[in-house]
Amino acid sequence: MLEKLIPKKIKGFRDINPSLNKLRWDVLGKAKEVYENYGYKHWDTPVLEYAECLGKYLPDKEAVDEGVYSFRNPEEEPVYKNDGNELRDEKDEVIMDKHFVSMRYDLTAPLARVYSEEVFLQSLRGQLNSKNAPLFRRYQFGPVYRFEAKLQPGRFREFWQLDFDTVGSPDVSVDAESCLVLSEALERIGLERGTYRVKINNRKILKGLLIGLGITNVDQENNILRILDKLDKIGLTGIFDELGKGRKDESGAFIPGLGLDHDFITELMSKFEILSGIEYREQSLAKLEKIGINNEIFLAGMQELNKIDSLLAALGYKEDRVVFDFSLVRGMEYYTGPVYEVESLLKYTDAKGVERGIGTICAGGRYDSLVERLIGIQVPAAGASIGVDRLCELLVLAGRQKEFKDQTVFITVFDDELMPEYQKIAMELRTAGLKSEVYYGSQRSLKKQLGYADKNGYPVALLLGSDEHARGEVTVRDLRLGEQMSGDITDKEEWKKKAQFPVRREELLATVKKMLEQTQI
Amino acid sequence: MLEKLIPKKIKGFRDINPSLNKLRWDVLGKAKEVYENYGYKHWDTPVLEYAECLGKYLPDKEAVDEGVYSFRNPEEEPVYKNDGNELRDEKDEVIMDKHFVSMRYDLTAPLARVYSEEVFLQSLRGQLNSKNAPLFRRYQFGPVYRFEAKLQPGRFREFWQLDFDTVGSPDVSVDAESCLVLSEALERIGLERGTYRVKINNRKILKGLLIGLGITNVDQENNILRILDKLDKIGLTGIFDELGKGRKDESGAFIPGLGLDHDFITELMSKFEILSGIEYREQSLAKLEKIGINNEIFLAGMQELNKIDSLLAALGYKEDRVVFDFSLVRGMEYYTGPVYEVESLLKYTDAKGVERGIGTICAGGRYDSLVERLIGIQVPAAGASIGVDRLCELLVLAGRQKEFKDQTVFITVFDDELMPEYQKIAMELRTAGLKSEVYYGSQRSLKKQLGYADKNGYPVALLLGSDEHARGEVTVRDLRLGEQMSGDITDKEEWKKKAQFPVRREELLATVKKMLEQTQI
Repeated sequence: MLEKLIPKKIKGFRDINPSLNKLRWDVLGKAKEVYENYGYKHWDTPVLEYAECLGKYLPDKEAVDEGVYSFRNPEEEPVYKNDGNELRDEKDEVIMDKHFVSMRYDLTAPLARVYSEEVFLQSLRGQLNSKNAPLFRRYQFGPVYRFEAKLQPGRFREFWQLDFDTVGSPDVSVDAESCLVLSEALERIGLERGTYRVKINNRKILKGLLIGLGITNVDQENNILRILDKLDKIGLTGIFDELGKGRKDESGAFIPGLGLDHDFITELMSKFEILSGIEYREQSLAKLEKIGINNEIFLAGMQELNKIDSLLAALGYKEDRVVFDFSLVRGMEYYTGPVYEVESLLKYTDAKGVERGIGTICAGGRYDSLVERLIGIQVPAAGASIGVDRLCELLVLAGRQKEFKDQTVFITVFDDELMPEYQKIAMELRTAGLKSEVYYGSQRSLKKQLGYADKNGYPVALLLGSDEHARGEVTVRDLRLGEQMSGDITDKEEWKKKAQFPVRREELLATVKKMLEQTQI
Repeated sequence: MLEKLIPKKIKGFRDINPSLNKLRWDVLGKAKEVYENYGYKHWDTPVLEYAECLGKYLPDKEAVDEGVYSFRNPEEEPVYKNDGNELRDEKDEVIMDKHFVSMRYDLTAPLARVYSEEVFLQSLRGQLNSKNAPLFRRYQFGPVYRFEAKLQPGRFREFWQLDFDTVGSPDVSVDAESCLVLSEALERIGLERGTYRVKINNRKILKGLLIGLGITNVDQENNILRILDKLDKIGLTGIFDELGKGRKDESGAFIPGLGLDHDFITELMSKFEILSGIEYREQSLAKLEKIGINNEIFLAGMQELNKIDSLLAALGYKEDRVVFDFSLVRGMEYYTGPVYEVESLLKYTDAKGVERGIGTICAGGRYDSLVERLIGIQVPAAGASIGVDRLCELLVLAGRQKEFKDQTVFITVFDDELMPEYQKIAMELRTAGLKSEVYYGSQRSLKKQLGYADKNGYPVALLLGSDEHARGEVTVRDLRLGEQMSGDITDKEEWKKKAQFPVRREELLATVKKMLEQTQI
């Protein structure tokens, strides 16, 4: 209960202003085009879903309510039995319950639901298997929601993702294609080649490595992977300690280790060190050959990466776009094969003058088990996601946001009686394809009206009082010329003449058009 | 608790498939252009807001949790006092609470929050008043959420709105502009003039009428307006009964009446009957003059409508676009001046052969008090909203959805060894500006692969096996020709030659381009 109503957003949520929206929709529009060029189709799913359908696939979360906005649906609905029928009590009444619903935390879990819903009857009838599961390729964009209890600066609880996925194919050509799509989308959005790189690994490489060293328990595997995933943050030494007896972090707090055997850690780390580090793809693949791991899973992973490499090579995708990085883990436990992420190499200088990067802007991989929990049948799937807000932030920080010049013609309002005339001018301009805004506030000073135009970055203002109207004239003011010269006025009279002048009403459209062409970049 | 996981959407929610998405984004894109032409700027706000900030402005709802998805924020936050400071206990500890949050039920309440948040400090300092409140013009689109306990068929609990509003101006020219914007947007979207009409009324007319007849209590006024609002559903007789002793509805249930005095009802109804009915705007305005109501509010309403009419007339907006309808109430109690809605005049034939209309597709009006509850200062505001989903439904039902021909070139996959070649062809086509999709499933039959292409409406498929590859050829299949002729095959051999033929690899691009040009509409 708020005692007082204070108009504000929930912490971690934000408003998107016109300039950021311009950028966001430019990014979405361009990536969308690329996705469509590859045959992905635009689907949309609700923001709200049954909690059980979304599942618990948040990174490192065991419970559905951790990190997810969930609540009870206000509607009572039947509870279902395993055979798909309604659960009933002794009196044969359907048992009702208010089910938990969640705000989607990503776009992949809803995809699994869409796909599963589509093939559900087939799966109940036993007509569906991994091999005949229909191919489904979709892209989707929109907000997702995460309740991060400790919100880091610059992070949000509502943010936009832009996903594309292929469900129904085990072919790692799909994974290769994902890397093409990411690379092409980012370049279309405006990231030059060399300012980003797509990094690929395969879960089977890391899993195979651990199996080769004797780790066969899945929980233990995940625990180790979670620590290897921290390479960027804690380095090889940090990993060494966390696999073993633990370590103190910068704040002095003790982080308990896994307590693994010293010899095992030494061997793992020596291999992991060899594997980490980015080289020519050919050399990276050669390292895998030489590492001395020969189990089936490792070899399968190698074969998949070789296939991906040969496709990339055939299409001329060199290391300035796509590389292998065998230290890449990707947090999500649901990945089962190739994983990929895009690292931005752009730097920016923060308020304290420190040079910083923004890291990962896209991520994805193969998840062959995500549909299984919903329909009991493994259906192969792979895809990736662009972190739209993160990418927009990068474009702003690195100064890559294209300057947008609003070309709206602004019509100031002096005299309420002339409102029909102001509107007619606006309509004439719009009919000619120009944007035009009439200011609604005849009681306000010209200064205030022009302040509004200035705030919106408008190039041209029109002024029309009853005298000018009687003479058949309109006064035109060049707001950008004003802006340009105001710091360096040598001859005020001349400036005035250039920046503000009368034109005949019938010449207005032509004059304004010409001015806009000049101010356009 | 679901015993079994059944992959499904929450009742009242839906997935948007590619075809509906195409339509939705076509509608959004075109309306957006019109909004921008008038100077409205694109803002976005979160889906989730503090319940207190959104308020209880749902039609006919008294409590915040009726009709709105609300739940407790998982985060504890301070409770605020009336002076804006945190509330503290005896030990001077800040009192914390988990505040209620709501999924937005429209885009107007968040607008009021955005605006209020912007001017909040100014308002606290006493620097803000109705006259100097800054002008703010924004458009916004996105999903809104309503928990309708009894969900009508064809209604949804998540649906999209597309709003534009002007905050900070009392000038009813804004309301006139709203009607221009709605009309222009609908015509750009594809509704021909004459298939829709914008209807305008003014709350001050109805309020003035009631005052003239002695009703000064606001609750009573709202009760009467709520019944007058049912004109379309229950007719004049139904209104008469509900104002008086009540009536039985079609199901036989008794609807209690307001129990108003018979003479009062007779007088109200005689005037309401005169006022209802659509004529030339000039004649409508003349009726107001003659109705015999002279109180200040009624006269102010008349003056506003006259101003709106004179603007519309000056711009050439005749009755085929905008009319007056003095029986128009609009449910929302927050409207304080002009109200408007757009009625679609298009009919469609339902499954039972009955001709039906779809009614209201846009609505709006002036709401001068919405910001007041957040900052204590009345700030004039007006705007309107397009019901995106309702409009899309109308376009589909009335057969106005433009046929969309997907122009993606489909590449079938026979031989896994040739995957690099398939990809190269796809890349070559994409580089030339064509869409192209490689099928990922070499193990599947050609029939299955072509079935997928067919489902997606693709025009051309390419077939390439190792023999053709060795000969430097690719087989091209015209899928639309196939479709076109399959019902009417006279010479199978000739059809085959036309529908499927080999081309030299180096002539592939040119051949496909030519085919696509022919299949394009």
